[in-house]
Amino acid sequence: MADSEYREMWEKLDLDLPAHDALLEVLGKFYGDIYMSQQGRLQGMEYLDFVLSEVHGLRIKELQDAKAEGRKIVGTFCVFVPEEITLAADAVHVGLCSGADAGTELAEQLVPRNTCALIKSFIGFKLARLCPFTESCDLIVGETTCDGKKKAYEAFADHAPMYVMEVPQQKRACDRELWKSEVLRYKEAVEKLTGTTITAERLRKAITIVNDRRRALQRLNALRSANPAPISGRDALLINQVSFYDDPLRFTQSINALCDQIEERIAAREGVAPADTPRLLLSGCPMAVPNWKLPYVIESAGAVIVGEESCIGTRNIRDLVDESGETVEDMLDALVDRYLKIDCACFTPNDERMDNVAAMAREYNADGVVQYSLMFCQPYGHEAIKLGKRLDAEQIPSLAIETDYSMEDVEQLKTRVEAFTEMLVR
Amino acid sequence: MADSEYREMWEKLDLDLPAHDALLEVLGKFYGDIYMSQQGRLQGMEYLDFVLSEVHGLRIKELQDAKAEGRKIVGTFCVFVPEEITLAADAVHVGLCSGADAGTELAEQLVPRNTCALIKSFIGFKLARLCPFTESCDLIVGETTCDGKKKAYEAFADHAPMYVMEVPQQKRACDRELWKSEVLRYKEAVEKLTGTTITAERLRKAITIVNDRRRALQRLNALRSANPAPISGRDALLINQVSFYDDPLRFTQSINALCDQIEERIAAREGVAPADTPRLLLSGCPMAVPNWKLPYVIESAGAVIVGEESCIGTRNIRDLVDESGETVEDMLDALVDRYLKIDCACFTPNDERMDNVAAMAREYNADGVVQYSLMFCQPYGHEAIKLGKRLDAEQIPSLAIETDYSMEDVEQLKTRVEAFTEMLVR
Repeated sequence: MADSEYREMWEKLDLDLPAHDALLEVLGKFYGDIYMSQQGRLQGMEYLDFVLSEVHGLRIKELQDAKAEGRKIVGTFCVFVPEEITLAADAVHVGLCSGADAGTELAEQLVPRNTCALIKSFIGFKLARLCPFTESCDLIVGETTCDGKKKAYEAFADHAPMYVMEVPQQKRACDRELWKSEVLRYKEAVEKLTGTTITAERLRKAITIVNDRRRALQRLNALRSANPAPISGRDALLINQVSFYDDPLRFTQSINALCDQIEERIAAREGVAPADTPRLLLSGCPMAVPNWKLPYVIESAGAVIVGEESCIGTRNIRDLVDESGETVEDMLDALVDRYLKIDCACFTPNDERMDNVAAMAREYNADGVVQYSLMFCQPYGHEAIKLGKRLDAEQIPSLAIETDYSMEDVEQLKTRVEAFTEMLVR
Repeated sequence: MADSEYREMWEKLDLDLPAHDALLEVLGKFYGDIYMSQQGRLQGMEYLDFVLSEVHGLRIKELQDAKAEGRKIVGTFCVFVPEEITLAADAVHVGLCSGADAGTELAEQLVPRNTCALIKSFIGFKLARLCPFTESCDLIVGETTCDGKKKAYEAFADHAPMYVMEVPQQKRACDRELWKSEVLRYKEAVEKLTGTTITAERLRKAITIVNDRRRALQRLNALRSANPAPISGRDALLINQVSFYDDPLRFTQSINALCDQIEERIAAREGVAPADTPRLLLSGCPMAVPNWKLPYVIESAGAVIVGEESCIGTRNIRDLVDESGETVEDMLDALVDRYLKIDCACFTPNDERMDNVAAMAREYNADGVVQYSLMFCQPYGHEAIKLGKRLDAEQIPSLAIETDYSMEDVEQLKTRVEAFTEMLVR
């Protein structure tokens, strides 16, 4: 599709075209520096490069085509929104822009200055008219996972078609009841939006689609326990990021093809870094596109990332939905149970996350853990202290990083990560 | 009681005596500067001066005496913990120290630097062994009202006997169910702690005690609509603060006696400031003892505070528990309903708070509203922006202040408040 057709589409979506051009230019350069400069990439990453190069182009065109066919677009910022229900009503489920500083001054008129970069970003993208995903949405589904998002959605609702799901804060029977009623309420909302009744057949198919994507990503992650590391952390993060935007069937097929290549590479004892490269697990806050700063810093400091313990990582794929349900009711119960297993820092206590991180570090043969918190993210900021103590107790070295989307601290981060990595030399 | 007996008591509570001495000295001087310097105070404030001067002395002695009689002490940081249930089990219900910088360096080892002063304070008071209330507690009841407290309680639980109540984030039927199950769980926990079964008679009596205190404070607030203002905002804040520490029966009696005096003063058209003094409503985060900085700044800048819209203010007293219930079940339902009316910023949406603040400003004949947010308090930080817009729309002037417990910004705050007050001259 020609660039002029995209421009026409973006204009129809009421994007700020000059600012959007500038954004795409910066994004392209950033991607080139961080991704295209890598040595020994897997051939299958070409698919991801293509998807990312077309993330505001071809993918948005697909959304517009879906809308022209009468399908609805549902946007989200969180792994708690049950994608299976969206898909079962034949709507499209996409993640929204929240990974770069954009429209920050405008955002700070709606939310406090002391708000994390991710929240300021999604509000800024909307107010500055820079996110074609947000502008394509018929419904945007938020959740009450943190104070920052919970309260930001109230302000955001004046600018976008918001719907908010309440996520409980503990995991007892009464919390499951609350969460179940929220899942049922979401089902009704999506049915109303789309005019499509969610049948057992539709829901079963949707559960299989999303589980298949999770299985492909689980397969990818399992292969990363190999030494030398067969894929860079940057590429694996990109794959996880793209999983929120791309058509799920196409994506799953591509990732399985990539995994076939990785298996060949492992059989040949090849990798993206020598076998003695320090292996790090990245753990903490989500990294939305194009938030590649810390992975780039880490992998430029002589280490390789072997896992992402985050919502844009294992938190989104670890648990499958039980597929044995026969009725809609059975399947909804299975969804309720699966989503309540998520080890988000919004829960108190959230000890299973401590267990999961320690287990991942061992499983992926990591030499250490880099904890990543967005500045002003209270849930993961608190857990960073708790997790640091737990990792100390298990004699797993860890480094806690707090940062935002600016580039001002890159040199300082490099220095800290290099010092940490040197300590780990295998 | 002689100072030496208090020292013995503090020693038994394992307080850090030299640091505690220093704290009491600073507190005494601070109180003298801010409170004893006031002109035309009500004679009934002597009771409050006495209670405050004995807050770590006589009141702690009373708690120790209660413990010696086999009664239990329950400490809290939030107006969501149903005091009626604590009292019905014959336990003592007290607020805990959280209004001054204390043990900050120690606290920052347990919680992130970007945590509000109130949370750092309660952790610091505990770790530095400076709060005789905390040290007297058999149970400390937290709640999930904000990310900061929710996660801080996890760390705090390693140092104190913590119990956490989950507060829902919306107010629909499923939220009421969750909250009801939490109220029932709290009842069971208190019964287990005390060995006392909560009967209808006990619960009815407790409801009356707490309602009577609310009624006395409602009476006080209603009298503050008079012009000239019959009582300073500092004194009214102190009364609200002391309501969390003092014996409820004694307190209620004293406040009603004070209200009698206020009525005489109003009849004589007398007040603490001339009738043309700008009248301000204070709104936002709670101000725990000895957090008197902003009220002092405001009332030193030629204004008078006529109401406190905060948890240590109207949020704790606006709603009574329905007293018509006959059975324990009825009364528990009445408690559930009453507590779910609280217009805390933890709810989304929380539009009733916007309505309540605007209504209070009119009711108390306020010329403007000073919004107070603790730095890094996300819920009230977000609502400050929303409330500012609402007050603008109602043509009620407002000023948003974000601060902490340090004294470094006092001059800057004075300048801002003076500029705001001059704009309002009646």
